[in-house]
Order: sequence, then C-alpha cells, then structure tokens
Amino acid sequence: MGKKGEVKLIGTWVSPFTLRTRIALNLKSIDYEFLEEKAGTKSDLLLESNPVHKKIPVLLHHDRPICESLIIVQYIDEVWSSGPSILPSDPYDRAVARFWAAYIDEKWFPALKTIRFTKVPEEIEKKLNEMREGLSLLEGAFVECSKGKSFFGGDQIGYVDIAFGGLLAWLRVREKNYSVSLLNATATPNLAGWAERLCAHPAVKDVMQDPDKLIEWVQINIDKLQQAPPAK
Amino acid sequence: MGKKGEVKLIGTWVSPFTLRTRIALNLKSIDYEFLEEKAGTKSDLLLESNPVHKKIPVLLHHDRPICESLIIVQYIDEVWSSGPSILPSDPYDRAVARFWAAYIDEKWFPALKTIRFTKVPEEIEKKLNEMREGLSLLEGAFVECSKGKSFFGGDQIGYVDIAFGGLLAWLRVREKNYSVSLLNATATPNLAGWAERLCAHPAVKDVMQDPDKLIEWVQINIDKLQQAPPAK
Repeated sequence: MGKKGEVKLIGTWVSPFTLRTRIALNLKSIDYEFLEEKAGTKSDLLLESNPVHKKIPVLLHHDRPICESLIIVQYIDEVWSSGPSILPSDPYDRAVARFWAAYIDEKWFPALKTIRFTKVPEEIEKKLNEMREGLSLLEGAFVECSKGKSFFGGDQIGYVDIAFGGLLAWLRVREKNYSVSLLNATATPNLAGWAERLCAHPAVKDVMQDPDKLIEWVQINIDKLQQAPPAK
Repeated sequence: MGKKGEVKLIGTWVSPFTLRTRIALNLKSIDYEFLEEKAGTKSDLLLESNPVHKKIPVLLHHDRPICESLIIVQYIDEVWSSGPSILPSDPYDRAVARFWAAYIDEKWFPALKTIRFTKVPEEIEKKLNEMREGLSLLEGAFVECSKGKSFFGGDQIGYVDIAFGGLLAWLRVREKNYSVSLLNATATPNLAGWAERLCAHPAVKDVMQDPDKLIEWVQINIDKLQQAPPAK
C-alpha cells in the first residue's frame, strides 16, 4: 500500500517511539521511506517537521508532518483500513487502551529512561522496583484487555501492544545492564507469553531491536547521548 | 440527554481537569450527577474507580469508570452524538488537535503547576517565561487550528479549546499571584479574543471558575494542599 514517496518516517532504528510507528505501518502494510537520523544530530528536515519538540519520530504523509508516536499510531489507524484496527471498536475498550498507553508513557517509562543516570545502589533498586510494580499492573491490564486472547488487542496486535511493545527491547537492555529479570514467566507469566508472541509477529519481527545490538550502539554512541533511551 | 444515574462525574469544582470533562458533557447536553470530592480527602468511590492514579476526574458511565481528563473527553465525543463533534473529522486535523492538547499537558501545564513551589525570583521569572513562550506557540496554534473562526475547533468548541480552556482560570490565578499579564490583547491577541468567547459560551460560562474564588479556596485549603492546582 502507498505510492512511492507518499509516506516517509523520520526516526532511528534504536528509538522505542520510532519502533511503535514502524509496527503500526507494518500492520497496515504501508510502504514507507525510512529517513534515519544520525545519533547526536538533528536533520534540517526533522527540525522543520517538528519545530516544537524537535524529536523523532515524525511521519510525513504527502509531506505533512505528524508528530508524537502515539498520535502517529492513531493517525495511521484512522487513515488506512488496509489491516486490522489498532484501536478497539468499542468506545469503552478504546478508553481503557488509551489509559494503559498513557500509563506506560507517563508512569512506567520514566523509570526505564532515568535509571541509567542513577549511581546510588538504593536509587537503582528503587527504580527497578518502580518498573516491577508497573509490570505487575500491566500483567493485570493484559488480562483485562486481551480477554483471554493473544494480545492486549485481542486476536490482533493493538494500541497497547504497540505502546508497550515499542519499549520491550530497551526493557531487555535494562535487565542486562543490571543483571536482573523483570519480565519473565514467574513474575509476569501473561506478559512473558505476550512478549514472545509479539516478537514473532510478522509486523514486528523485522523491526524489533536486538537488545545486544542496542547495548553495542550505546557503547559506540555514549559520548553523543545526552539521554537514553533516545527521547521520542 | 442521559437517564438518571447513567452518568456520574467524580471531581472538584476547582480542578482544571474536571472542568474539561464538564465542558464536554455540557457540549453534548448530557445530564450527569456531580460527585464532588472534598479537598484533601479521597472518597472510597474514587479509590475504587481509579486505583492506579487515585485522581479526579473519573467519569462513571453505567458505573464503569473512565479516567484521565483527555481520555474522558474523547470517550464523551465517541459515545454521544448529541452535540457538535469535539475532535475534528479529518484525521490530520485530529492529529494536530491531539498534538496541541498533549503539548498543553506535557509542556505548558508543568510551569503553571510548579511555579507556586518556587521562591527564588529568578526561578519564578524563568517559569513565567516558559508560560509566555508556550502561550506564544499556542497563539500560533490558534491560527493553524481555527482557520479564521472563533475557536481552536472552528465554529464550535473542540478538543484544544477544552484542553486549554480547562486551565484558563488557573492561568488567571497565576497572573494575579505574580502581578503579571500573560494572556492579553497585546501579547496574544488571538488567544485574548478566544478566551473571552470561550468564557461566554453556554457550555462553559456556568462551570468556568472565578479566579478570585480559586484564590480564596487556596487560602482556605492551603494546609490540605500537597500540590496545586489540584492534580488531574
């Protein structure tokens, strides 16, 4: 789907927020040109396309920019019917999906993002516990949203799958960084099964990052990084 | 519209986030029962209805809770067609509206919220400048969204009007607190006209807070307030 040049995505392969938009585009079978930003720099196109936040990802559709990953995902869902609906059809289910996606961004992601700036062991443990508590809530959210099916979205990957799935490889990076297991078959059995199914999904498997390559990327780019993981 | 007991709203009259949901309900002519929380306490119903954030507002529709003000506003828009659409019909316009609503919450509101914890004059001036810069962006956003009409939503109050309008009385409180004028006919002529039209609108005028009454409320409840304005 999509004529050549109709859809472009400004992002990076390491960005969890770019990943969200790539999964959504894949789900809808949209051809797009991937305009990869270099680490530590911002292209003129990015600065022109997102002058307020100056951040990736930006979707360009007929050269009109759409910014902010979850807004892009909703836009993709509303414009293209060439794949399963990303948001649930029922307004209440849609509100619940939006609630958990917002929870992930506003409450859960900050610990994942900021833990690397923390050096004090007690502070690190506090952040890890925040992540554990969030995963426990998301384990319950999975039961609520999936209704016994494979994904938060039911039979198909949906909004919460994309919101949470975008951050999955960076969660694995943090597990490796701190030699802990946070999302696993004992602590979060539903999420453990979900993560396996998600990573194997045709819309995800070719764009999901390899945690070891992310770690390697961080080591190479450590001087260029003001913040990690890359801000959306 | 709405049968008795079908729609309830847990909130407070002072809350900018509760105000958003009241404007949306009024726009759709929905009758609702307003369950007012007392300052400094949280009712059992609130704690049961929003166990994750424990915050107002919560909309109860047939006793099912919907949390987070902008999610509630979208829910109201999707469930009830008894009034103008709150989100624009075009997906791109909808993405732009969502962008500015998210900007207001994530980038602009924090300065408005946290300035009262600041005592150092330079820090106060910095926060006031953040608010001024944000208003300048929103002045431009008004031109982009309104397309020469009365509101961000065009002829009708829409999503950005509600997102920004909910915070308007608290902006006036801050202007009074610090003896400054931030939103006015010189600095932000479009927003100044917009604010007047918004406050006079039938869906808004009976629920918009009086800034002087908010100041009085703060003085009475200062000991109970951990944060101000009240968190959503």
